[in-house]
Amino acid sequence: MLRTHTCGELRLSDANKTVTLCGWVQKSRDKGGMIWIDLRDRYGLTQLMAEEGSTAAHIIAQARSLGREFVIKAEGVVLERVSKNDKMPTGDVEVKITQLEVLNSAKLPPFLIEDDTDGGDELRMKYRYLDLRRAPVRKNLQLRHKMAQQTRTYLDNQDFIEVETPVLIKSTPEGARDFVVPSRMNPGEFYALPQSPQTFKQLLMVSGFDRYYQIVKCFRDEDLRADRQPEFTQIDCEMSFVTQEDILNMFEGLVRHLFKTVKNMDLAAVPRMTYAEAMQRYGSDKPDVRFGMEFSYLKNQAPPAPREGANYELPSGGLGAFDEAELVVGICAKGCAEYTRKQMDELTEWVRRPQVGAKGLIYVRYNADGSLKSSVDKFYSEQDLQNWAGCFGAQPGDLMLIMAGPADKTRKQLNELRLEMGNRLGLRQPDHYEALWVLDFPLLEYGEAEQRWFAMHHPFTSPKPEDIALLDTNPGAVRANAYDMVINGTEVGGGSVRIFQKPLQSRMFELLGFTAEEAQNQFGFLLNAFEYGAPPHAGIAFGFDRLCSLFGGADSIRDFIAFPKNNSGRDVMIDSPSTIDQKQMDELKIKTVL
Amino acid sequence: MLRTHTCGELRLSDANKTVTLCGWVQKSRDKGGMIWIDLRDRYGLTQLMAEEGSTAAHIIAQARSLGREFVIKAEGVVLERVSKNDKMPTGDVEVKITQLEVLNSAKLPPFLIEDDTDGGDELRMKYRYLDLRRAPVRKNLQLRHKMAQQTRTYLDNQDFIEVETPVLIKSTPEGARDFVVPSRMNPGEFYALPQSPQTFKQLLMVSGFDRYYQIVKCFRDEDLRADRQPEFTQIDCEMSFVTQEDILNMFEGLVRHLFKTVKNMDLAAVPRMTYAEAMQRYGSDKPDVRFGMEFSYLKNQAPPAPREGANYELPSGGLGAFDEAELVVGICAKGCAEYTRKQMDELTEWVRRPQVGAKGLIYVRYNADGSLKSSVDKFYSEQDLQNWAGCFGAQPGDLMLIMAGPADKTRKQLNELRLEMGNRLGLRQPDHYEALWVLDFPLLEYGEAEQRWFAMHHPFTSPKPEDIALLDTNPGAVRANAYDMVINGTEVGGGSVRIFQKPLQSRMFELLGFTAEEAQNQFGFLLNAFEYGAPPHAGIAFGFDRLCSLFGGADSIRDFIAFPKNNSGRDVMIDSPSTIDQKQMDELKIKTVL
Repeated sequence: MLRTHTCGELRLSDANKTVTLCGWVQKSRDKGGMIWIDLRDRYGLTQLMAEEGSTAAHIIAQARSLGREFVIKAEGVVLERVSKNDKMPTGDVEVKITQLEVLNSAKLPPFLIEDDTDGGDELRMKYRYLDLRRAPVRKNLQLRHKMAQQTRTYLDNQDFIEVETPVLIKSTPEGARDFVVPSRMNPGEFYALPQSPQTFKQLLMVSGFDRYYQIVKCFRDEDLRADRQPEFTQIDCEMSFVTQEDILNMFEGLVRHLFKTVKNMDLAAVPRMTYAEAMQRYGSDKPDVRFGMEFSYLKNQAPPAPREGANYELPSGGLGAFDEAELVVGICAKGCAEYTRKQMDELTEWVRRPQVGAKGLIYVRYNADGSLKSSVDKFYSEQDLQNWAGCFGAQPGDLMLIMAGPADKTRKQLNELRLEMGNRLGLRQPDHYEALWVLDFPLLEYGEAEQRWFAMHHPFTSPKPEDIALLDTNPGAVRANAYDMVINGTEVGGGSVRIFQKPLQSRMFELLGFTAEEAQNQFGFLLNAFEYGAPPHAGIAFGFDRLCSLFGGADSIRDFIAFPKNNSGRDVMIDSPSTIDQKQMDELKIKTVL
Repeated sequence: MLRTHTCGELRLSDANKTVTLCGWVQKSRDKGGMIWIDLRDRYGLTQLMAEEGSTAAHIIAQARSLGREFVIKAEGVVLERVSKNDKMPTGDVEVKITQLEVLNSAKLPPFLIEDDTDGGDELRMKYRYLDLRRAPVRKNLQLRHKMAQQTRTYLDNQDFIEVETPVLIKSTPEGARDFVVPSRMNPGEFYALPQSPQTFKQLLMVSGFDRYYQIVKCFRDEDLRADRQPEFTQIDCEMSFVTQEDILNMFEGLVRHLFKTVKNMDLAAVPRMTYAEAMQRYGSDKPDVRFGMEFSYLKNQAPPAPREGANYELPSGGLGAFDEAELVVGICAKGCAEYTRKQMDELTEWVRRPQVGAKGLIYVRYNADGSLKSSVDKFYSEQDLQNWAGCFGAQPGDLMLIMAGPADKTRKQLNELRLEMGNRLGLRQPDHYEALWVLDFPLLEYGEAEQRWFAMHHPFTSPKPEDIALLDTNPGAVRANAYDMVINGTEVGGGSVRIFQKPLQSRMFELLGFTAEEAQNQFGFLLNAFEYGAPPHAGIAFGFDRLCSLFGGADSIRDFIAFPKNNSGRDVMIDSPSTIDQKQMDELKIKTVL
């Protein structure tokens, strides 16, 4: 080793030792007779020191010549500091330099290598290797490593086996777009990169592996929205001879283990909610349950039954927009009755943005003096508004925000508003975690454009046994044994009990519009496998990048990935993708058609 | 859980408990009044039993209807067996069935699901999910899991951080052929799949990650020889502020840890040998040092000096093939003097096969009576042969096998023969392990066809500082700070101290025939990174599939990969690669040119 200690290691008990440190010059201060250098490595910072008179002149000169981010090796003696710094673990000591060697010089970095940097996103991505030197980014990747370690510890202890499944697999048109890889040895043919190891993990269950997991890269060639990456990582799991209940318990256990070991937090037992209830109460299948502000229905509440005292039905003959609407639904913003006209206008503009797409926003202030004031006073009596307040559970001082329109669309829009109000009221603290299981998802959703049914989860998800008869009569009403884990309004994982019998799997493909031949051509290996003794099985996959960013209290997954791509799928650091040699194209027997 | 216990769990202490087991019918025996069923899962086998008279008739009927590989759930009472089977952990008990449910039936498998199967390679690959049920194959993957676990344990304890590097990277013409991925969002451009995370791990060192590892999939589009796979797994590692010595110690430690924890074996300290010495003594840069049979030189031994007593030089004027040969070299096969003429002819044919390519084989028998008999008696005196025996260290009863020809070629051929004789004499036992470090590889090798230098390891490998001056005068003589770990004649890992300064890296690219522009275009990100404070660093990568097969005592890596591809790069189970939709090609703006 070029060093005897790391830069995070020295303590007062090391005083008078001769040590050698290596690292990067974080900064240096030259106060005439004294020079101090903060030396940085992954493990911490240590202060080096040279003193005119007692340090050799050539070392003083060397020390003065060091620039930021120079890589040096310094030998010296550990001394107790006169003025200690109790903010750093090494703050009791400094190292008085006796030998100094520049291992490598450094040009001035294009942005500050500090916790708060002056580098913009673009620049930091281009020089990602410098951005990774900054403690906040490095800590994100250290967190990620710890998350992976603890995931493996938990699953290993539960007798899971990690099995690597192939990356060069077969393209299937179902689901998102595949990345494909032309095969040189099989001209005209292509591999696909896996969107998930779904079929392979099911085959491993057919093989009797019983409990499988893998922390695995997956790939999706999608148009990248804000926080998606073309390659991402999953914690992928599957178990045999289990019920949904077993999966929920096992993986609630995993998440609680991660909170305990990584964040030293005790996560409360994870409550459960059906998809129908989540949509009803929050207008979302991934509700943020850290705060209430639940939906109150003025018109046309779907089952399940409204909460006590909230079973109100709006009289018709008032506001036309309400009379014509399929749904009139609102939320109660506690303590917001004082919102100014300007604030209300701004909020109305906010819901009208294309990202939300609402036509408008009705409000009712429940003033502190008990009076009620709304934007629809012309159409409804004070008593009506009183009834609404009852329905909303509103108190004097509160603000009711109401939307009307088609049921699905309006729920989605109000969900956006609810989350926004949660943000504005500080009800969504990143260091406060609440998890939720959402259960009983619909098995299928109808694609109006394609005029056919699509699997909501994937084609291998089992319908609830009691709903199987509905497959023939009312496919949209069939519920799946599918579940999502939601933390703080983010879906972090999802899975399902799988179909394990060939006839039901074939029926499912048929419902999804596959001919028998297409099903056999694309998924024949799985259908065949089900004939040779497939056990009942179920599984789940967690989005590992997302889980890490959530644990890190961040919104973006990008800073939890060492070398992420930008929104055009480019790695701007290595400048990829790029053109390739004609020779490569010739060997692959492909050409580009631009 | 559908079960209360696994099939490997029940012991005599569980007697009289009511239990539920799930698994596959391994086999059943019907002896009139009694039916026994061996139920199998990943954890073991348990004997189920039903008895006419005391077991309900419908269960007896059900039990009789079960075929091999049916998946069942059986409830029953644990009983002490009358005739115990001490070969199975559950052999003291059996479960008397009280309830039986067929979870899934099974067609007759296309081959026997037994340790020794009647299935050929092709069939087993097609039904890989059935082959994986066989205990030997399952155990290989369990071994692999344990190897990965213990690798992580060791490296985590040494403060390494596992960092995931990207899979969609940039194609570079240096090295083997890349698999490429057309980018839909960047038409005409391609990603490449990594042959190794080499440049990324070096960038992580520039970032100050200090100690990095990753168990990672890598890809190489090569024509597949017997035991290569287009996708394979590496244990990839890199360290900063280290010397070669530190790397050797750290990773010798890893391998010793794996032997101890996975195989409960104490691996001896790993000896070291230079490349030059390995070529000299064994004609191979990955010698199997489990047995001696070292090369003895009759003519033209290169340095290092021969071992004591072996400094012989053949007189000229004898056999023409010897007189004309650059090199005359042989091995001594202990106790083989009794080889018959037929055996010698067969051995000569063996070395003449194209796989070895030798022109012939000269032998000298040192008979038990002390007389010497050779195939070149016409050309050399008894005294000559006595001198040879002295040079070979041969004893009465031994057989000397001699080859002549151009130096490099002849060494390679004799290496093949040495390994073959080691096999025939039983000197290469798979359960006996000997590891070796091979050091000081040449930095460059000359490609006669291309008329240029190629990096022997890769372009990022550092020359030995004392040889740097030779880069300008005699590049072929420059030794690299590069090292391989060899176990039982197999290269399991290799690495090098890296170049970390831009001028030397640029010089290296120049030597390899890159123009400055090409170097910047392909590796600019790394060259630039070296300007911002790159630390001295070094690393290594182990072939994980190979390491697992070695630990498993097997020759082929294929059975240590869950879903391997065949020699044409095909997965015959999922039938991949395959054609893709025209729509996919259109979106990617490519077409095939067959």
